[in-house]
Amino acid sequence: MPAGTPVLGAARQLGVDLDSVCGGRGICSRCQVAPAFGQFAKHGITSAEVALSDWNIVEARYAEKRGLAPGRRLGCQARILSDVVIDVPPESQLHRQVIRKDADARPVEMDPALRLCLVEVAPPDMQAPSGDLERLTEALRTQWGIEGATLEPPLLATLQKTLREGNWTVTAALHRSSAEAPPRIAALWPGLLEGDLHGFAIDLGSTTIAAHLVSLRSGEVVASAGVMNPQIRFGEDLMSRVSYAMMNPGGAAEMTAAVRAALNTLLQEIAARAGVQTSRILDVSLVGNPVMHHLLLGLDPVELGQAPFALATCSSQNLPARDLGLGALPVGAQAYLLPLIAGHVGADAAAVALSEAPDRSDELMLIVDVGTNAEILLGNRHRVLACSSPTGPAFEGAQISSGQRAAPGAIESLRIDPETKEPRFRVIGCGLWSDEPGFAEATARSGITGLCGSGIIEAVAEMRMAGLLDAGGLIGSAQQTDTPRMRPEGRTHAYLIHDGSTSGGPVITVTQADIRAIQLAKAALYAGARLLMDEMGVDKVDRVVLAGAFGAHISPRHALVLGMIPDVPVARVTSAGNAAGTGARIALCSLAARRRVEALVRKITKVETAIEPRFQEHFVAASAIPHASAPFAETRRTAPLPEPSFNAEGPRRRRR
Amino acid sequence: MPAGTPVLGAARQLGVDLDSVCGGRGICSRCQVAPAFGQFAKHGITSAEVALSDWNIVEARYAEKRGLAPGRRLGCQARILSDVVIDVPPESQLHRQVIRKDADARPVEMDPALRLCLVEVAPPDMQAPSGDLERLTEALRTQWGIEGATLEPPLLATLQKTLREGNWTVTAALHRSSAEAPPRIAALWPGLLEGDLHGFAIDLGSTTIAAHLVSLRSGEVVASAGVMNPQIRFGEDLMSRVSYAMMNPGGAAEMTAAVRAALNTLLQEIAARAGVQTSRILDVSLVGNPVMHHLLLGLDPVELGQAPFALATCSSQNLPARDLGLGALPVGAQAYLLPLIAGHVGADAAAVALSEAPDRSDELMLIVDVGTNAEILLGNRHRVLACSSPTGPAFEGAQISSGQRAAPGAIESLRIDPETKEPRFRVIGCGLWSDEPGFAEATARSGITGLCGSGIIEAVAEMRMAGLLDAGGLIGSAQQTDTPRMRPEGRTHAYLIHDGSTSGGPVITVTQADIRAIQLAKAALYAGARLLMDEMGVDKVDRVVLAGAFGAHISPRHALVLGMIPDVPVARVTSAGNAAGTGARIALCSLAARRRVEALVRKITKVETAIEPRFQEHFVAASAIPHASAPFAETRRTAPLPEPSFNAEGPRRRRR
Repeated sequence: MPAGTPVLGAARQLGVDLDSVCGGRGICSRCQVAPAFGQFAKHGITSAEVALSDWNIVEARYAEKRGLAPGRRLGCQARILSDVVIDVPPESQLHRQVIRKDADARPVEMDPALRLCLVEVAPPDMQAPSGDLERLTEALRTQWGIEGATLEPPLLATLQKTLREGNWTVTAALHRSSAEAPPRIAALWPGLLEGDLHGFAIDLGSTTIAAHLVSLRSGEVVASAGVMNPQIRFGEDLMSRVSYAMMNPGGAAEMTAAVRAALNTLLQEIAARAGVQTSRILDVSLVGNPVMHHLLLGLDPVELGQAPFALATCSSQNLPARDLGLGALPVGAQAYLLPLIAGHVGADAAAVALSEAPDRSDELMLIVDVGTNAEILLGNRHRVLACSSPTGPAFEGAQISSGQRAAPGAIESLRIDPETKEPRFRVIGCGLWSDEPGFAEATARSGITGLCGSGIIEAVAEMRMAGLLDAGGLIGSAQQTDTPRMRPEGRTHAYLIHDGSTSGGPVITVTQADIRAIQLAKAALYAGARLLMDEMGVDKVDRVVLAGAFGAHISPRHALVLGMIPDVPVARVTSAGNAAGTGARIALCSLAARRRVEALVRKITKVETAIEPRFQEHFVAASAIPHASAPFAETRRTAPLPEPSFNAEGPRRRRR
Repeated sequence: MPAGTPVLGAARQLGVDLDSVCGGRGICSRCQVAPAFGQFAKHGITSAEVALSDWNIVEARYAEKRGLAPGRRLGCQARILSDVVIDVPPESQLHRQVIRKDADARPVEMDPALRLCLVEVAPPDMQAPSGDLERLTEALRTQWGIEGATLEPPLLATLQKTLREGNWTVTAALHRSSAEAPPRIAALWPGLLEGDLHGFAIDLGSTTIAAHLVSLRSGEVVASAGVMNPQIRFGEDLMSRVSYAMMNPGGAAEMTAAVRAALNTLLQEIAARAGVQTSRILDVSLVGNPVMHHLLLGLDPVELGQAPFALATCSSQNLPARDLGLGALPVGAQAYLLPLIAGHVGADAAAVALSEAPDRSDELMLIVDVGTNAEILLGNRHRVLACSSPTGPAFEGAQISSGQRAAPGAIESLRIDPETKEPRFRVIGCGLWSDEPGFAEATARSGITGLCGSGIIEAVAEMRMAGLLDAGGLIGSAQQTDTPRMRPEGRTHAYLIHDGSTSGGPVITVTQADIRAIQLAKAALYAGARLLMDEMGVDKVDRVVLAGAFGAHISPRHALVLGMIPDVPVARVTSAGNAAGTGARIALCSLAARRRVEALVRKITKVETAIEPRFQEHFVAASAIPHASAPFAETRRTAPLPEPSFNAEGPRRRRR
C-alpha cells in the first residue's frame, strides 16, 4: 500500500470489511478503526503511533463536535504512513457476525439487502441537459462504483424536492434483491442520514401474527409484538378459511384485506413503541404457511384445500411492500417472502429449516413444528426431508372437554403421584404448584379455567405413568385404578383434576374422548415423522427439536411418554422456540441466508403423507401410548410405564 | 438439413423469420409458407412437389376447419424431404417490413415488444410439489427456450383460474423491454388466442391528445382519434400550466389526474370504435413535451418553468401502464415513454428525430415542429443538433386580432392580387376560393370567422409580396398602398380581408399589432434554426421539414417569404405531418427503434437558446421580412418582394 493511503481506501483494496455511509467524507463515522501499537511478533512488524498520519481538520472537527472514543480514528481520514496494525471493531463492520440469543447461539452474518450511501449529485446544467435521476445514478456510479441503480417509481415524484433540500447531497438507501441484481433506490434523504435502517421479520400464523423490528445494522430485535390473526373470524383453522373462500364470492379478498390491515396496525404500533421512524423501515421478511402466504399475496387459497394441493407459486418472492398493501411502510420499502416447500409445508417450515439448519448437521435431526398442521423436517448434511401431518387442533386445546387456549388460569403443567393418584399442577400466570402454600391466593384472580395444550399432553402422559390409562388409551374405572378421582361418565371414565364448582369455577377432567382426540393427534404426528424415517431408511434419529411457540412449552419427557415423537434420550429433545420467526429474522438480515434457504428448499425431498399407504399403517401403530410396536426403550429407562389393561369393556366401544 | 425436418424447425435452425404462436402444434397457422416448384437456376436446384411431405392429419384437419389458401402449407407440419424452395409470405414473418403510408414511405421493421406463445403447462403433482407459476415458466423454458420469464404481479391472482380453464394449455403474451431483458408475462389466456395483439401510440400535446391503435402484427393503424387536452382548463399554454402547479398546492396532481382520465376515456373509445377488445391492448408508446411528460408521470413540472429547466428524468421509461393510471388497459399492459432531449425539447422532438431520421440523411436537414414552443433539429448522418425556441402562440392564432383556432369558418389560405390588392381566400370546411361561384352558399353555415395560423402566415406573406407591408414590418397607409382596403387604426393601418358585419359576422383585418406578433414568433423560430446552423458551422441547409399537425398546413412558399425558415428552394421544404405521432408508432412497433431513438438522443448536441448571446442578435436580424441581412436569394427567385418603405412616421412608433 503506498504511504499516504487512507485506512478506508486500504481496507477496500484489501477486501477488509469496513463500513462507510458518507464515502470517505469524514462525517458518518461508520469507518472508525482502532489502531494497535507495539511489537506484533505474529505479524512480524512494529506498529508505531507515527505509522498513522496526525489528525487532520476533518477528523478533529468530527471529534470536537460528535466525540470519538479514545484510541479510535476515522478510517477515511487517518492515512497509513508505514507498517501498522489496525483493528476493525465489530460496529464498523458491515458484515459483522451477530450471535443469536437463543439456546444454541449460532452466529448470524449480517448481509442485509439495504445499505446507505451518501452521494453528491451534480446540479442541473442548462448546457448539458440531463435528468435529476440520471445525475443521481451517475453519482452512485462514479462515487460508489454502483452500476445500474434504479429508483423505485413512486419515489420519482419526490426526487426533485429531496435533491434540492439536500443542496444536491443526499443519502440513498439502496436495496438489492440479490448480490448480483442492480440495486433499487428504496429511499432518499436530504444530506447525511444518521442512525440505522430497520426491517420487520414477520411470522404470519393462522392464529397469531408476530412481528419483530430489527436493526439492519446490529441485527438486534429492538421490539416485538403479536396480534391475533383477524382471519379467525372467517374460520378458526386453515381448512375452515379455505372453505370460507370457496363458499363466499370475494371471501378470499376479504381475508386478504383483514390480514393486511392487521399487519399495518401491528407494524405501526411496534415502530411507535420502539421510537423508530417508519421512514427508516425499508425491508420486510415474511413467513407463513401456504394458506396464509397465498391470502397475504391476494391469491385464492381454494386449490390448497383439495388434492393435489397446488400452490399458485412456490418460489421466494421479492416485491415492493406496497404490493402487499403494507401502507404503514414507506413507498420504497421492499418485501421478501421465503419460499414454500409444498402445498402443506410452507414458508414457515422453510424458515425453521433455515434457522435450525438440519442441512448443516452431522447428527440426524427431527424437527417438529406442532400446530393444527404439524410440519416435520428430518435430515442431516446429506439429505433433508419434509412433510406435514394433519394433527388437528387437539394440541391447541380444541376438541378437548376442558381444553382452552393458553391464557392465564389454564393448567399448563401437571404431575400425578403414582401412589396416591393425586394431581398437582401449575396454571399460566402463577409460578407455584397447586400443592404449594399461597397457590389459592395467587390464582384467585385468574381462576383455574381449563387445560391448555401443554397441560393436556402432560395430563395424558402422567395418567399413563400413574397407571390410570392403559397402552391402548383406555381410562380405568375408580375400582381398577383405586382412586375416587375416577368418575364414571356413561360407559367410560373421566379423571378429575380440579373441581372448581364450589367457587363457581369449572370442573376440570380428562375424559375418554379427550384421550382419543390426543391419540389421533399424536399418532398423526408420529406417523409423519416415521414416514420420513422410512424414506431416509433409518429407525432412529439423533435429536428431536420441538419448534414453534407451542413446542417451547411441551415437556420433552411427557412428549416421549405420550409417543408424539420417536424414542430418543430425553436430553436429546430440545425446544427451538419460535424457529420460524428466527428464520424470518435471519433472512431479513442476510441476502446469503435468502439464497441458502432457497437452495435448501429446492433440495428438500417432499413427502406427501396423504398419498402414502404406509402413513395409515404407521398411524394405527402410533395410536397406542407410547406405541404399539416401537419399544421406546430410551423412554422406559427413565419413565415408569406400568402396563395395566382396562380392556374388559373396551373393544366394542373403540369401534364406535 | 436432415430429410424429414419440418419447415418451421428448418427456419429456426437457419435463423429464417417464420412466425409461430402455437409452437408447432398446427393450430395457430402463423407459420404458413408458400413452397415454389420448378427449376431454380439462381439456387442451382430443382424444387419438386415431392420435396415436401404429404399433408398429415393435423394439416388436413386445419385446412378443412379453417381453410388454407391454395399453395400454402403449415410450416410446422410440412416436412422437407429434399431440396425445395420455400417463400415466407410477409404475414408469416414476425419481423416483417411495413411500408409507412406517409410521403417518404420509409419502411418500418416490425420488432414489437410483445409476442404470443402457446404453452402446455404440467399439471400439479402431489409427489413433486411446485407452484403453478413455476410450472408455467418451466414450460416456457422447455417449449420455447425462454429463460427467466416473470409474471406481472397483478396477474398472479388470476393465474390459477386461467390455467385450469385452459386445461393447462394457455397462450402467454410475453413482453420484453429490450431484446436482452427476460420477458414478463403481460397477459394469459386459456387455450390458443387467435388474432392479433394491439398497442397504442400516443402523442400527448399541450392542446391535443392523439392516440393511434396499432396492430402489433401488421403495424397498421386500425383506428385513431384525438381529444382536447383537459389540462387546458388549468392554462392554455405550457408556462401557464407550470404556473398553475407553482401557485396551487396539489395543482400538478390535479393536472396529472385530468390527463390520465382523458387518456383512459380516449383509449376506451378508440378500442370500442375499432372493435378491438381492450384485453388485447398490451403495449403503449408515449411522446410529449417535457411538461406533458412530467405531468403524465405525476412529476412536478415547476422546475421546467425556470432556468436551468431541470428535468426530473430524461431517459426513456419502461413501466407498467397501470403506473401511469391507465386503468382502461389490462393490468399487465406495459408502457414505453420515449426519452427527452432537454428541458425544453421533449420526447415529441425525440419521436420526430426517430421518424425523420436526420441521423441517417446525407443531406443537411432542418426539421421544425412549430407550436407555442418550436422544437428544431438540424443534422445529417455526422451530427444532429437540437434546440427549442419560444415562438409564442401567434402561429396558433392567439394574440392575433382576428385570430382563431383552426376550425370551420377560419381562413386557412389567402392570396392578394399584387395589382388590385384585393384578397381571395379559402376557409376551413370549404374547398372553394372566395371568388369562385357558390362560395357564399358553401360557407353560409360556418360563416367566415377569423384567421387560423396558416391563414395569418399567408396573409402576412401575401401583404409583403403585394407591397402592402415593408421589409421592416410596417403596414402602408391607403394612400401609400393605393387601396381602400387599408384602414387607419390609431396611428397605424389595418388591412381589411373580409367585412362580415352586414350579415352579423366579424370584420377580419390584419393589424399592425398582428404583424408585430407574427414578426416576434417567426424571428424566434428563425433565430433558433440559425443558432443551430452556427453551431454546425454552415450558412445554408439542404432541406427543411415542417413537422407537426400545424406544419402540414403551412405553405412552404409563404413560410419562406415570411422568413420563418432559412432560405432554400421552395421544393426543398416538405411537410412531415404528425411526425411525433409517427415516431411514437415506430417505437411501439419496434424494440430496435427504441434503442435507436435512445442512442440518437444521447448523441444529439443540445443547444439552449436562452443562454446563447447570439440568439438575441439573430432574433433582431430575423424580425425583418424575410430578413434584415440574409439575402433569401432562392425565395426572391420565385416570389416578388417589392421594397417599399413606409418608414415616414415609423421610427418613433416602433420605439414605443
